[in-house]
Amino acid sequence: MEKIGFIGLGIMGKPMALNLIKAGYRVNVLSASNASGILKEAGASLIDNIAELSKHSDIIITMLPDSPEVKNVVSEVLEGINSGSLFIDMSTISPAVSLEIFTIMKDKGVSALDAPVSGGQVGAEAGTLSIMTGGSEDSFNRALPVFQAMGKNIVLIGDAGAGQVTKACNQMIVGITIQAVAEAFSMAKKAGVDLEKMRDVLLGGFAQSRILDLHGKRMIDGNFVPGFKVKLHKKDMGIALQTGANHNVSLKATELIAGLMNQLVSEGHGELDHSSLFMLQEGK
Amino acid sequence: MEKIGFIGLGIMGKPMALNLIKAGYRVNVLSASNASGILKEAGASLIDNIAELSKHSDIIITMLPDSPEVKNVVSEVLEGINSGSLFIDMSTISPAVSLEIFTIMKDKGVSALDAPVSGGQVGAEAGTLSIMTGGSEDSFNRALPVFQAMGKNIVLIGDAGAGQVTKACNQMIVGITIQAVAEAFSMAKKAGVDLEKMRDVLLGGFAQSRILDLHGKRMIDGNFVPGFKVKLHKKDMGIALQTGANHNVSLKATELIAGLMNQLVSEGHGELDHSSLFMLQEGK
Repeated sequence: MEKIGFIGLGIMGKPMALNLIKAGYRVNVLSASNASGILKEAGASLIDNIAELSKHSDIIITMLPDSPEVKNVVSEVLEGINSGSLFIDMSTISPAVSLEIFTIMKDKGVSALDAPVSGGQVGAEAGTLSIMTGGSEDSFNRALPVFQAMGKNIVLIGDAGAGQVTKACNQMIVGITIQAVAEAFSMAKKAGVDLEKMRDVLLGGFAQSRILDLHGKRMIDGNFVPGFKVKLHKKDMGIALQTGANHNVSLKATELIAGLMNQLVSEGHGELDHSSLFMLQEGK
Repeated sequence: MEKIGFIGLGIMGKPMALNLIKAGYRVNVLSASNASGILKEAGASLIDNIAELSKHSDIIITMLPDSPEVKNVVSEVLEGINSGSLFIDMSTISPAVSLEIFTIMKDKGVSALDAPVSGGQVGAEAGTLSIMTGGSEDSFNRALPVFQAMGKNIVLIGDAGAGQVTKACNQMIVGITIQAVAEAFSMAKKAGVDLEKMRDVLLGGFAQSRILDLHGKRMIDGNFVPGFKVKLHKKDMGIALQTGANHNVSLKATELIAGLMNQLVSEGHGELDHSSLFMLQEGK
């Protein structure tokens, strides 16, 4: 079994690394991490810096907040990583940055995959994440048993960057659909229509979506405890807009919803669930 | 069994009236209608004008293109309709007009329901329409066996107008979700991502919707044969915006997508399926 270096032990990364240990992998983590105690107890080895960790791992996985953090870590990884290693970034970042990393790693004789996930903290803990992968088939096959310790719906979408593009598309559709439901529900509410009944009827037709089901329920209940935070979705919409600009694709609805999410964050609601777009609709 | 007068024998109305006859109802239709020959053959009685048809029917059903047509027909219905009759408008029109009609009919001692449908021509022919009803419970119970001859998913949503509000909400969510999928697919396509694979993955997560499934498939195949025509959806988005304005609800995404549909129609694509929003995205 290959030795894994795991960098980024946050809400997502910690349970993912723990699942790798449970599956029998030897896992290296950074001693400075807040979660290093728990990881050590579970069986991980602690290493002092990223270069050393990279040197003593066959596969290096990153799970970080955004592109700048990944770029910073990559520059340190490069100081230690061995030719023949596999670098997997599972963060949600810009497809353009994923492509850069792929090329830099290639020059070092290292394979790279972009493999962002969806499924949130619950999916990370249960080991049921969806994993959208971009890169070569060989790298994907090498990573597959590792992915299987963390996820269920695991797909090689295409070449380097394709995983991130797919994740961006996912976030666009989810964000825009939340707004669609929020507009419909706010209008129906003002018109005196019973939202519970309306949701039931609409779920039986062409308006059906997982968002109408789950986030529609949240709007009816006024439950905006995350879930998935607006501030994170805002970041992802920024990635989508940047990617659209890079490919000269106009993204009018994405732009509109990104703006509404910016507004929520600037008004101090960034920690709420993204279904709180309904609050903006209601003028709260 | 009550005698039914059916006004509006178009693509939707004709099969709906035929299903009523099949269910054993005596149905009156206007002799001037293009479909009167087929309806007569099936067993309908032909009557020369709306006032007479209304006089000789217990339940009058209208299935017309838009609010102005319904208002015109209502003014003629009022010249013949008997107190104690039931008037059911199954067209998709403005909730405000439905409320007006409800009040006018009430003054005549006539009950009224707004009962717009979804399911399209296929649903009308198969007798599997979704029927979203607004009005009193008594009127709904009286209409129920009639509805059951034409539909499957039949719900009393609330008071007069609630059926139309729900239909408007359905059209908003459907239209906005189509644009969400169109933006994602056009970006992914430009980025070289396999759309079929991406659709499969996204259907397994939070981006899942009936639109991603069916209209996503249409976009991949470039199949814009209706289905549901852009020009009809454009009309429905207009109803939604008017309803939002009446209730002081801002509908930013609805407005955006209504504008894109206007553009498609003005560029001569009004007869295409509404999934042709993807064509606009692709700059075709």
